[in-house]
Amino acid sequence: MPEDRLTLQMRFIVEAEQIKQVFRQTVLLQDKRRENDAEHSWHLCLMAIVLAEHAAGTGLDLLRVLRMLVVHDLVEIDAGDTFAYDNSGNADKLQRESAAADRIFALLPDEQERKLRDLWQEFEARSTPEARYAAALDRLQPILLNYHSGGVAWKRHSITRQQVIERNQCIAEGAPRLWSYALGLIEGAVRRGYLRS
Amino acid sequence: MPEDRLTLQMRFIVEAEQIKQVFRQTVLLQDKRRENDAEHSWHLCLMAIVLAEHAAGTGLDLLRVLRMLVVHDLVEIDAGDTFAYDNSGNADKLQRESAAADRIFALLPDEQERKLRDLWQEFEARSTPEARYAAALDRLQPILLNYHSGGVAWKRHSITRQQVIERNQCIAEGAPRLWSYALGLIEGAVRRGYLRS
Repeated sequence: MPEDRLTLQMRFIVEAEQIKQVFRQTVLLQDKRRENDAEHSWHLCLMAIVLAEHAAGTGLDLLRVLRMLVVHDLVEIDAGDTFAYDNSGNADKLQRESAAADRIFALLPDEQERKLRDLWQEFEARSTPEARYAAALDRLQPILLNYHSGGVAWKRHSITRQQVIERNQCIAEGAPRLWSYALGLIEGAVRRGYLRS
Repeated sequence: MPEDRLTLQMRFIVEAEQIKQVFRQTVLLQDKRRENDAEHSWHLCLMAIVLAEHAAGTGLDLLRVLRMLVVHDLVEIDAGDTFAYDNSGNADKLQRESAAADRIFALLPDEQERKLRDLWQEFEARSTPEARYAAALDRLQPILLNYHSGGVAWKRHSITRQQVIERNQCIAEGAPRLWSYALGLIEGAVRRGYLRS
């Protein structure tokens, strides 16, 4: 095995460490600090394992789901986190993230670059049952944290019930049962004043 | 599907969120803040995916490795992180962590409790090639971060080259090539004064 293959892999692994500095709008339940992408991605992996039975369809490839979830936010090292309800930020999100993917995945040996970049694109396009399940978890987790933190991020940005429903209804494609659950949280959040009705 | 099954799963997922408050001795590369277990676990998952070709043996079950890595530190929510070079802390580590596993995994539906607890025990016992590879990554990652952060945690605790080698040589069982790589980092760390010789 050529020495430089492992060197490239390690350089990628060290570069990827910066994801721990990409902060999201959602806050942690205990200290109300903003969550970073590494913590978020770990939490999604745990959810993927525990909730797999709720994914739409049958024969889910859980390994594919986990691989996707582990790499899905790496582009945010360069592109930053875009708040779900930031319409202008979401307008050029794909362009910023594509440029980031060009740089970050290219640190890897060629065939690994292609493989991880394809996984990221599959996730973004929600083009497979695995991607739709992974994307459903990515939408559900902030709803869960917002609900249990007393709606800190929702209140800060005056988010409405309708915005949350429109933005997240794609959860139903990947995991219908989890969308019913999310709707219950959303209605509860309106009743408690975490979301505007 | 009974309603309460999903309720139990969600309670576990919310409880597990506390792992983001369990801080390790190793520091992050950019802001030198101590890393938490969620960030660490995510990083191990990324390493498991990228470095799989370096695992000992053939036919590695990467899904099993990822499941193990995602749950391996959950017991630290109750038991706390034990520094690798803290001999007294490591003496009663297993007992503290078993009690934690009793409480935390029991939040899940019965068969999921058994499955995740078995995965944690497999990891701790290093009883399979998957567990040995996962454990190798768990040892390698702090060496990598220590090396690239200028040895912050090693210097703080006056750690020696010999301590790092004794504590981590089990990396060789799970991934011999990665142990050679780690030895290179350790020798480099001694030369740079990050580790006592």
